Amino acid sequence: MEEQKKCAVKRIGVLTSGGDAPGMNAAVRAVVRTALYMGIEVVGIRRGWHGLINGDMYRMTAVDVSHIINEGGTMLYTARSDEFRTKDGRKKAYDNCKLFGLDGIVAIGGDGTFAGALALSTEYPISVVGIPGTIDNDIGCSHYSIGYDTAANTAVEAIDKIRDTMQSHERCSVIEVMGHRAGNLALYVGIATGATAVLIPEEPWDFEEDVAEKIRNARLAGRTHFMVIVAEGAKRKADGTLDNEVVGNGTAGHQVADLIRAELGLDPRVTVLGHIQRGGSPTARDRVTATRMGYVAVKALAEGKTNRVVVRYFGEIKDVDMVEALKQENRLDEEEKQVLRAMTFSF
Amino acid sequence: MEEQKKCAVKRIGVLTSGGDAPGMNAAVRAVVRTALYMGIEVVGIRRGWHGLINGDMYRMTAVDVSHIINEGGTMLYTARSDEFRTKDGRKKAYDNCKLFGLDGIVAIGGDGTFAGALALSTEYPISVVGIPGTIDNDIGCSHYSIGYDTAANTAVEAIDKIRDTMQSHERCSVIEVMGHRAGNLALYVGIATGATAVLIPEEPWDFEEDVAEKIRNARLAGRTHFMVIVAEGAKRKADGTLDNEVVGNGTAGHQVADLIRAELGLDPRVTVLGHIQRGGSPTARDRVTATRMGYVAVKALAEGKTNRVVVRYFGEIKDVDMVEALKQENRLDEEEKQVLRAMTFSF
Amino acid sequence: MEEQKKCAVKRIGVLTSGGDAPGMNAAVRAVVRTALYMGIEVVGIRRGWHGLINGDMYRMTAVDVSHIINEGGTMLYTARSDEFRTKDGRKKAYDNCKLFGLDGIVAIGGDGTFAGALALSTEYPISVVGIPGTIDNDIGCSHYSIGYDTAANTAVEAIDKIRDTMQSHERCSVIEVMGHRAGNLALYVGIATGATAVLIPEEPWDFEEDVAEKIRNARLAGRTHFMVIVAEGAKRKADGTLDNEVVGNGTAGHQVADLIRAELGLDPRVTVLGHIQRGGSPTARDRVTATRMGYVAVKALAEGKTNRVVVRYFGEIKDVDMVEALKQENRLDEEEKQVLRAMTFSF
Amino acid sequence: MEEQKKCAVKRIGVLTSGGDAPGMNAAVRAVVRTALYMGIEVVGIRRGWHGLINGDMYRMTAVDVSHIINEGGTMLYTARSDEFRTKDGRKKAYDNCKLFGLDGIVAIGGDGTFAGALALSTEYPISVVGIPGTIDNDIGCSHYSIGYDTAANTAVEAIDKIRDTMQSHERCSVIEVMGHRAGNLALYVGIATGATAVLIPEEPWDFEEDVAEKIRNARLAGRTHFMVIVAEGAKRKADGTLDNEVVGNGTAGHQVADLIRAELGLDPRVTVLGHIQRGGSPTARDRVTATRMGYVAVKALAEGKTNRVVVRYFGEIKDVDMVEALKQENRLDEEEKQVLRAMTFSF
Repeated sequence: MEEQKKCAVKRIGVLTSGGDAPGMNAAVRAVVRTALYMGIEVVGIRRGWHGLINGDMYRMTAVDVSHIINEGGTMLYTARSDEFRTKDGRKKAYDNCKLFGLDGIVAIGGDGTFAGALALSTEYPISVVGIPGTIDNDIGCSHYSIGYDTAANTAVEAIDKIRDTMQSHERCSVIEVMGHRAGNLALYVGIATGATAVLIPEEPWDFEEDVAEKIRNARLAGRTHFMVIVAEGAKRKADGTLDNEVVGNGTAGHQVADLIRAELGLDPRVTVLGHIQRGGSPTARDRVTATRMGYVAVKALAEGKTNRVVVRYFGEIKDVDMVEALKQENRLDEEEKQVLRAMTFSF
Repeated sequence: MEEQKKCAVKRIGVLTSGGDAPGMNAAVRAVVRTALYMGIEVVGIRRGWHGLINGDMYRMTAVDVSHIINEGGTMLYTARSDEFRTKDGRKKAYDNCKLFGLDGIVAIGGDGTFAGALALSTEYPISVVGIPGTIDNDIGCSHYSIGYDTAANTAVEAIDKIRDTMQSHERCSVIEVMGHRAGNLALYVGIATGATAVLIPEEPWDFEEDVAEKIRNARLAGRTHFMVIVAEGAKRKADGTLDNEVVGNGTAGHQVADLIRAELGLDPRVTVLGHIQRGGSPTARDRVTATRMGYVAVKALAEGKTNRVVVRYFGEIKDVDMVEALKQENRLDEEEKQVLRAMTFSF
Repeated sequence: MEEQKKCAVKRIGVLTSGGDAPGMNAAVRAVVRTALYMGIEVVGIRRGWHGLINGDMYRMTAVDVSHIINEGGTMLYTARSDEFRTKDGRKKAYDNCKLFGLDGIVAIGGDGTFAGALALSTEYPISVVGIPGTIDNDIGCSHYSIGYDTAANTAVEAIDKIRDTMQSHERCSVIEVMGHRAGNLALYVGIATGATAVLIPEEPWDFEEDVAEKIRNARLAGRTHFMVIVAEGAKRKADGTLDNEVVGNGTAGHQVADLIRAELGLDPRVTVLGHIQRGGSPTARDRVTATRMGYVAVKALAEGKTNRVVVRYFGEIKDVDMVEALKQENRLDEEEKQVLRAMTFSF
Repeated sequence: MEEQKKCAVKRIGVLTSGGDAPGMNAAVRAVVRTALYMGIEVVGIRRGWHGLINGDMYRMTAVDVSHIINEGGTMLYTARSDEFRTKDGRKKAYDNCKLFGLDGIVAIGGDGTFAGALALSTEYPISVVGIPGTIDNDIGCSHYSIGYDTAANTAVEAIDKIRDTMQSHERCSVIEVMGHRAGNLALYVGIATGATAVLIPEEPWDFEEDVAEKIRNARLAGRTHFMVIVAEGAKRKADGTLDNEVVGNGTAGHQVADLIRAELGLDPRVTVLGHIQRGGSPTARDRVTATRMGYVAVKALAEGKTNRVVVRYFGEIKDVDMVEALKQENRLDEEEKQVLRAMTFSF
């Protein structure tokens, strides 16, 4: 119990911000239990930065985080705060840190959440540590982000069901999965479901090469149903850009389906998985990763560190510099792309 | 094993037709195994009536139906056949009955499937028995239709996930479930998920009374997220009718969401569950019901009956006259409607 | 809202007693919301009759039952109370009814729970209504008991997984499911999973006829893995009785497995499903049935009825006389037994 | 498609051996599809080395591996072969390699499978590559083994259900999970479920310190139900060793439960998860990892490599020397142990 002695912080806050992700509750629980284990007090901040500005916070005990490790969503609620992007908003937030006596904050969310944390800690003497939580797994600095595994399994289970009926009817199916700017989820889910073709935002697609030929070859190889996985931000080569406002409402999926109907004479069904992917009881991997990240975050604060992000980097969970972390760009796994190419090749 | 002696049929065909439903495989399996148990041969007909017309059929053994009781979809494929609606089509179908030596047919599907079976048996000396299989549970003569329970559970599980994220973000959610003409599924799922409001095809909705007041009362009672379940065929009172061609693509759901946005200032998210509801490993109830119905269907043929539909009627599984059965109109459960009213009342 | 006027009760208590079952929370929620809808106050009694004796109870509002429709277990806890079986215990219980001003009680549980309720209402002027909640579905008066469908699906999903590995290894599997005195669950699950043989408490088994021949015939028909479903109270014909104290710990399953090993030279794996079957998020059917039963129970109290049990009887949900209800003996479905015989026949 | 040109092998075999694991089918599928993509023929060998010895093998096409990515178990069956451990057995195996014209083999299984492969390739001119597939994740050379994620999620879902009923009854639960010699799964599952205590084979347990104090502290902190996760090979400190023959049948779990009953006066329920953990549709992670490993295995053979094992090592999937790989000992994750200590600390 040596950890309980030499803590650089006495009372820390924890919040979830940005889009919610399954496993955020497990992370909150780990922050609370690790802090108490180390003799640090914990304050739960509701609705992200918004709650810090408005003093919407309360002291948390071990009992408060009982029975939440297996719950989707976030018990602390989440919200986006425009006010926190202003100097004035951050001033109010820091005033509450003083009032409540917080000397550290664990902020669970995505790049935007980290940028907010960094702004606060740059302007005021408060330590911050970020934990990546977003189902898109598109945070450049970390190979893993809480919620991704649950979202992927939810998508895979839904697509398995769709496959049942596509097979019975010998039909073509177009399924739109999450991913405005990042194709990680689409690529992963495409491999896991044995998709006929996968379209992602990073690589504008050509109908003839990326869709029609894939379907034709599968048909020639004897298959009679086809599944095309489309990330919501996937763009057609010719088009240049998709209208961003409508992204995520099936625009990308319907565009592909319309072409399949027009060019191949099939009658594809479009399914937009949407918000189903954001919820659900977290998987074992998300629970364990969230727990480990919560532990590392509090440990970093206890050791007097600030401006850190907890990442999974080549199999290790550790904290890295937040400024450096925010510079990292998200990348697709090159090996996964190669593997997909081999798997969607038909003969 | 007395059953094995006195069979009125020697070789029967089994087919699935119309939209597929989880549990159809369990029904096919039960037909095959019961027939073999009774000493009757079984021929599997692929792609519904289409396969009967084209002779797309094969002798089935017990091994053919191994490991399918837990599979969604239908191993016999399904299709809609325009040709079978013509006299000429049915002539070809009957010619194949003669060629293959079939004296009975078990047809698994919905009202359309039964109508086809009846036309065939009216024109030609072949015995037919129908088994209700459709996720809508909208077959008037039977209180239960294979696939309904699985579809309901799939919808409920998906909505549970959506609720997680709606709760985190304190948002409103509009979820469109299957049901062009029948609200049975929407009503059932609405009760099971604790919905704020449920809109069904049978009762055109009024925004103020059926949506706005429900949401307002829930908000006044302290709730901060709301779930509106909309059957795809639900129509607004003012509108009279929905454009049928677009039904099922989110039209009904988006119409409700747009009004919520305009009138209540909320920013609802729309999810169209779509074809997910059609697939998946069947639930215990669908497997057992399908098995029992398959057994009763073959028994009816063995006893020399024809033009029968196997139904669940007030807890009993039995066969009834097909002509009478087709006259029955689907009805909503009045008790469920009362219960929903009490459950969606807030204070 | 006519219902809200003429209520025979003003403040009712609700409790769960005996073994818990998935859907009990949905029933509690329905009792609370229906009561409030009708203008009746509700008091939640913790830990069954034990809580009534000790005054462990609190006023419930709509918010108290938010987000529990999808939770397994019971938020009111459950316990068995020896004290309530004594006159003295029931005196204390009734004293608390007077102190808290209760004029009616909804008791959710099994036959034992109903017997307790009846004793209380016989001795004191308090109205009682029972709701059947037990995963065994062994309550004679009702064709359905809350929790049964969830337990059956849990067992089926577990057995589907076991089948995967039995198939890979071409092995025999013995699976013990719940059921001390009643074989309903084993029979239902056996049909749903396509079991090779099913052994139930009501019909002492003969190894040669009920196990060995079933396995031999399946092997002769080309199958290489076998699944024997055993209810925990299934007894061997020769033995007369099983030692009751060890029932449920795999005794029945291991007895069968040992004989298979000795007589057939196979190396069966035994799995005892145990308490897994008691938990889990309730299925759509359990949620809807629980909600409807809760509604009917409160309505009965509001109408001035007492000593009623809410039952599902041939597809209808209604309240019946409790004295008559307790006289009914549990019976197996004869049709299910016939169907199982046909399905486990191999050739 | 450069890969398709320069292949060092022309026709390879693929087999699964040892205990089956979810994801093995996905690996077989990836081997077949990658080989065909590269212009290599594939032969499926049934029942592991046993099938190679007996010539139980057949040419596989893309169609053979359709619709198996989502299936648990292994379509190639698995078995343990004593004969293959003899020189004579391996001679027969190699003779079949010559007869069927195999110049490479992909062997999916555990350490024993790899040892067999190495023996064959040492004695005869045939290339071998291993893919780790075992739910225990106890293969020293690889941080991940196919099937582990599915097994962990199956255990977590089962324990979540048990928690529901433990909470309702305020009871103690002892759950035995897989792991004869390795505690990886127990540790991982213990963190994911928020266990009160976790006992593993690597660290003999002391009742007072590792069980009693954990439960007492949880009780003092206000909790009323407790979950102890026990790996089947966990040994009590005093005992030295467990009787190996009975391991996995609940021996370890019942030993702990008996002590809890005797020393703490609680009445714990024991659940042995057993073979449930071996089956089930593989998770997204197991499908993707299996697919990637299958791809790397064939690529290695195509490049002329032999005696390689495909591993996941700090986030990368690559092939390593088999001799070196077999020397690696399985280790528990030290960080996970620290995290568990913090999480099971109560106050």
